[in-house]
Amino acid sequence: MSQPLAERMHAFCLALQDLVCESLEAQDGQGRFREDGWERPGGGGGRSRVLEGGGLFEKAGVNVSAVHGELDPAFAQGLPGQGNRFFAAGLSLVLHPKNPYVPAAHANVRYLEQGGRAWFGGGTDLTPYYLFEEDAAHFHRTLREVCERYEPGRYARLKLDCDRYFFLPHRQEARGVGGIFFDELGGELEGAFAFTQAVGEAFLPAYLPIASRRRGLPYGEREERWQQVRRGRYVEFNLVFDRGTTFGLRTHGRVESILMSLPPLVRWPYAPEVEEGSAEARLLEVLRAPKAWV
Amino acid sequence: MSQPLAERMHAFCLALQDLVCESLEAQDGQGRFREDGWERPGGGGGRSRVLEGGGLFEKAGVNVSAVHGELDPAFAQGLPGQGNRFFAAGLSLVLHPKNPYVPAAHANVRYLEQGGRAWFGGGTDLTPYYLFEEDAAHFHRTLREVCERYEPGRYARLKLDCDRYFFLPHRQEARGVGGIFFDELGGELEGAFAFTQAVGEAFLPAYLPIASRRRGLPYGEREERWQQVRRGRYVEFNLVFDRGTTFGLRTHGRVESILMSLPPLVRWPYAPEVEEGSAEARLLEVLRAPKAWV
Repeated sequence: MSQPLAERMHAFCLALQDLVCESLEAQDGQGRFREDGWERPGGGGGRSRVLEGGGLFEKAGVNVSAVHGELDPAFAQGLPGQGNRFFAAGLSLVLHPKNPYVPAAHANVRYLEQGGRAWFGGGTDLTPYYLFEEDAAHFHRTLREVCERYEPGRYARLKLDCDRYFFLPHRQEARGVGGIFFDELGGELEGAFAFTQAVGEAFLPAYLPIASRRRGLPYGEREERWQQVRRGRYVEFNLVFDRGTTFGLRTHGRVESILMSLPPLVRWPYAPEVEEGSAEARLLEVLRAPKAWV
Repeated sequence: MSQPLAERMHAFCLALQDLVCESLEAQDGQGRFREDGWERPGGGGGRSRVLEGGGLFEKAGVNVSAVHGELDPAFAQGLPGQGNRFFAAGLSLVLHPKNPYVPAAHANVRYLEQGGRAWFGGGTDLTPYYLFEEDAAHFHRTLREVCERYEPGRYARLKLDCDRYFFLPHRQEARGVGGIFFDELGGELEGAFAFTQAVGEAFLPAYLPIASRRRGLPYGEREERWQQVRRGRYVEFNLVFDRGTTFGLRTHGRVESILMSLPPLVRWPYAPEVEEGSAEARLLEVLRAPKAWV
């Protein structure tokens, strides 16, 4: 190929952003994405798109960035490459639906270069506030198909890595019902790029059918409150543990784009109780003991 | 003195908790504290008190803990003492009032022992969502009096340390209008203990008169939304930067007591705008350029 991977990945992310935003707007039927272009003082920039107050999505953010420059040396040490020069391009999306029966979702694809090394990363995970086993199964089945196309056994590995990554140790809970997660996928880079693209493209077919079939379910104050409480766990994960958030804040990225992932409205009551045998309790059981969905 | 400092500090914290909770309940006029005793599997425990849905306070937490055991070695390295054995006793309180014109507030006093070293820490800071200069001045004046009683010049130093500590680098904003902050106060331990007690006892006279004079101000949706957005910054500080939160989570403290500090209802809109010349903009000016209040 004549173009360097960095450029091809950036172009892929921009095209995927267009596709995703168009599809989400069409599904939403009411909200529109607003776009903010931004530049990073140290090098590079991004294109953030956010939809708020829609019919389906209370807040949806789809961000593309391509940044480069010098890493803080202490931070660079924790990364697999050598030296402080870096390039990073990626797309990151987080959806916070209005209806508590529609799961929140996250997807990300990224490409990094640091001192002579290059690698891909990415993944997608589903965070329901009420559990429908068939939704989790559909999400995982779609991802399994993508993974197995590239390498037998890859799904099982990346599913486990996802369960390990999206875990809140202080709560001893998974963030949601998982999905797949991969990082430092290097080696044969053309193959890694192809797989990363396939993961990015799998998000819509994995998620949209679920949103479609749950968005019309009636809900009341109880479900809304539970959604807001569970969103608090989402915030705890992103601010305390998420590497993407840390990377963004440590590399002086644009704060509003990094924290675009935070839910629109969140509640932290003290020690909320959950009724035994309720739908809320069933969700917690699954978050405390991640299971095989396919 | 016959009793060790660890016990005396613990007893002081329990008595201060009684005093503070009684006074806050009396001021609230409506809400009541509920109490949860808890034990830490590794050693020690605590007494948490939380009031929710009160007349003045939407959520108020006053927590006392006295814990001991072994620190994670990597974490112990960042502390001033030697070795992994530790003891920590302290009181921590966070108030989230209902009326957006009443500032949120935090106070903490703590005593730590680690491998032959012992030290005190503490402080208190005020987080208004609308700025009344006389409130900030009253709060700081009260603290200055306490500090200057112990050592001339101490207030100026601890005020500056507070501005440095309660700072959100990614937002380039102070959390609020500050107060005082001290850590690793060792040396002559009886004097350090006396000062720490005085700081703990100064909280009510520093805060209550402010709450009293603002709680009756009328407000609407605009003020409530602003309060919820600003509370988001409070969450960002506590989850990303606060050492007390980190210490608690790293020493496997009781999660609900540690995160009791998080506000009851929080909003993260994307890139919220603030009208030039508005009361909201005036607050931001002060948060971006901390000033001398007395």
